[in-house]
Amino acid sequence: MSTTTAAAGTAAAAATTASALTVEEWARRARKAAAELGVSTTQQRNDALTAMAAALQANEDELLSANARDVEAARAAGTNEGLIDRLMLDHARLVGCADALLQLREFPDVLGEVIDRRTISGGVEMEQIRVPLGVVGMIYEARPNVTVDSAGIALKTGNAILLRGGSLARHSNDALIAVLREALASTGLPEDCICPIDATSRETSAALMGARGLIDVLIPRGGAGLIAAVVEQSKVPVIETGSGNCHIYIERTADVERATAIVVNAKCQRPSVCNAAESLVIDRAALSSLLPPIVRALRERGVTIVADSESYPVCAQTLDEDGLAGGDGDGDGSVVAGLEHATEADFAAEYLDLTISVKVVEDYREAVEHINRYSTHHSEAIITSDEAAADYFLARVDSAAVYANASTRFTDGGEFGLGAEIGISTQKLHARGPMGLRALTSSKYLLHGAGQVRA
Amino acid sequence: MSTTTAAAGTAAAAATTASALTVEEWARRARKAAAELGVSTTQQRNDALTAMAAALQANEDELLSANARDVEAARAAGTNEGLIDRLMLDHARLVGCADALLQLREFPDVLGEVIDRRTISGGVEMEQIRVPLGVVGMIYEARPNVTVDSAGIALKTGNAILLRGGSLARHSNDALIAVLREALASTGLPEDCICPIDATSRETSAALMGARGLIDVLIPRGGAGLIAAVVEQSKVPVIETGSGNCHIYIERTADVERATAIVVNAKCQRPSVCNAAESLVIDRAALSSLLPPIVRALRERGVTIVADSESYPVCAQTLDEDGLAGGDGDGDGSVVAGLEHATEADFAAEYLDLTISVKVVEDYREAVEHINRYSTHHSEAIITSDEAAADYFLARVDSAAVYANASTRFTDGGEFGLGAEIGISTQKLHARGPMGLRALTSSKYLLHGAGQVRA
Repeated sequence: MSTTTAAAGTAAAAATTASALTVEEWARRARKAAAELGVSTTQQRNDALTAMAAALQANEDELLSANARDVEAARAAGTNEGLIDRLMLDHARLVGCADALLQLREFPDVLGEVIDRRTISGGVEMEQIRVPLGVVGMIYEARPNVTVDSAGIALKTGNAILLRGGSLARHSNDALIAVLREALASTGLPEDCICPIDATSRETSAALMGARGLIDVLIPRGGAGLIAAVVEQSKVPVIETGSGNCHIYIERTADVERATAIVVNAKCQRPSVCNAAESLVIDRAALSSLLPPIVRALRERGVTIVADSESYPVCAQTLDEDGLAGGDGDGDGSVVAGLEHATEADFAAEYLDLTISVKVVEDYREAVEHINRYSTHHSEAIITSDEAAADYFLARVDSAAVYANASTRFTDGGEFGLGAEIGISTQKLHARGPMGLRALTSSKYLLHGAGQVRA
Repeated sequence: MSTTTAAAGTAAAAATTASALTVEEWARRARKAAAELGVSTTQQRNDALTAMAAALQANEDELLSANARDVEAARAAGTNEGLIDRLMLDHARLVGCADALLQLREFPDVLGEVIDRRTISGGVEMEQIRVPLGVVGMIYEARPNVTVDSAGIALKTGNAILLRGGSLARHSNDALIAVLREALASTGLPEDCICPIDATSRETSAALMGARGLIDVLIPRGGAGLIAAVVEQSKVPVIETGSGNCHIYIERTADVERATAIVVNAKCQRPSVCNAAESLVIDRAALSSLLPPIVRALRERGVTIVADSESYPVCAQTLDEDGLAGGDGDGDGSVVAGLEHATEADFAAEYLDLTISVKVVEDYREAVEHINRYSTHHSEAIITSDEAAADYFLARVDSAAVYANASTRFTDGGEFGLGAEIGISTQKLHARGPMGLRALTSSKYLLHGAGQVRA
């Protein structure tokens, strides 16, 4: 192990560190590298992925010790365990990162795909082909696996990438990027295809957002605040990602067991992710029949219910009767823990924890109206046995993924068959929903003539 | 004619004028209308296009008199004839506008196109279909035909549109939009699918750029200054269009007649449009053989040559010898009109008139470098007999359309078989090059389950 560790140490020392160059300097290097990468072969890029995966494994000690420094500092700063869990690398996670790179090799190359081909005026041969976007900028939080995933997807699609991760992960990212750059260089591709951006300064984010003409797209990935700031301030085109105020709507004809299972899955399976449900919308007519079993199931899993004025009494009575949550069992709905009154702000909230709001509506028309008003346009579901209701909901809900009778948790590049995913777009321009390899491409018209001029 | 004129008068009076509502109010109306339009049938939208075309023709007197007011005011204000020509409507141009709407009917509907379809985990049926973007905002100059074209393309693709034309065309646009809205309403579609935005206030542009969440995309169309301002300031996603500093590169093996014909076509056929050539790049080795005939042909058509230091003497001698341009025929290159010295700024200039810059390069590698540095990434061409040079140029020039041995003037939605065109994108995100119907669409994942939850 000592030789590889030494090699990594040398690599890290030789590599230009994030803070050594300005954002503009890194972006110019990336642009130059992108021009080379854009004309590389599929084989070259796949070989680089192989080398990158191998380098992660060969430099495990080095990488884990850099990560340990970050984790230690984060703990010392009183960072919560959820964030520390996302920050932490171990053997299994590093193997996971390497495997993700190896899997990328298996995907067909999307570059060069012919989108359109025809003969135009005077016999000029036109071809519209898929090309890289060029230089991609990522601004994200302290998750080292995102560093590797993003670098891999960018490389596979012929894009250079500027990586500005969270400052909590700075040693991990410096080490990871140094190792990946060295691996790239060993295969003959420019190491500046993967560039680190100093995460210890806020100014570097601002510089990324201002680098129009040098960066082709900026992808913020993380909390709603980060994403809103980038969307608000960037002059570089942005793809808005990830924020998910997802709704499950229980239509009056919903099957009770199906509804309960889906709500529990969407809310509880992994509450911290963007495709988890944050709000339950339910028909007035189904309030007394369908809401109690769902509320019971949610409370059994520790979910806090934030109910609107109409649903509150039903929830209170259910919980009180069951004595589930601080009720005294007398059925009068008093003394209930785990139940709160919803305010307007709750309908717009992305809790990302074991909390769910409840909103009562008259029918599916009102449900659609409510959802389109408060949703972040990520994923929404209707649970129903009425095909007309489902059709109406699927056609009119203005979100990236709309479900009938399934959990919103399926919204994911892997689940949707895209393989790699660089984020989930909640805007309509360029890419919508889980973004796979094609989301990092553009197109270009190539025209072959024999002297034709326009008449 | 008096009845239709009267009807149009009534329609115009009944319609809410641009200045009656704020941008936000119009945008909210458009959003609501877009929700309806988004679930309309192909037949409904095609019928609306028919009604819109008929209404333009039925209200010709009304529309031409509104336009005459604008033209008169523009003349009184000393507006140049080029702009007045773009502003002016007459019978033939109005017929052209109506025909463009009728042609849109013939295009297949792109909405509902299935982009992807598969069965995912647990048998959930997934379908990714094409849907409208929602609400499109257009900021453009005083060209009334753009009002009709944009409204038609938006309607065909199920999008509501906010139209902010140039203030010089305000009476024309008010009248056109009132007529189109009335026609829409007569077919049962919401008139707010086409909304006028007050062009007499600068604040309305700022409001459009700030309306994130209400407007899905903003398309500026017009001069470089307008486009740069929108790109710089907008919080709504923008598609950058139209600015075209297009290059023709004469490689040393170029056939002289072919090169001359293409340069003359690209520069002179319609110098005011974005796909016209603005810069000639030429190999040092071809300077004495290929540049003189090209320069002669350009000067014969009144083109001013703005030459770099290396090409200047060749141009001067050519013109002087020919006595074409103020030369005294003694061949010493003195006293030459129509020839100027290029500065750095000339290589970045989009002249849009009978002017062309000349830059000498060593070879096709340096040509690509120069072009990628100064181009607006619209259209560029290489003239060559060397296939390797053509391949290198097509692969490496980073522009929407790259030509070998044909004129850049072909870059156009009609020429490329897209039919309707709402602009030419010079960015890489979402759409690149001429934007047809699909450029105004997004996608949506629809998922049908039977109670599936994520494992």
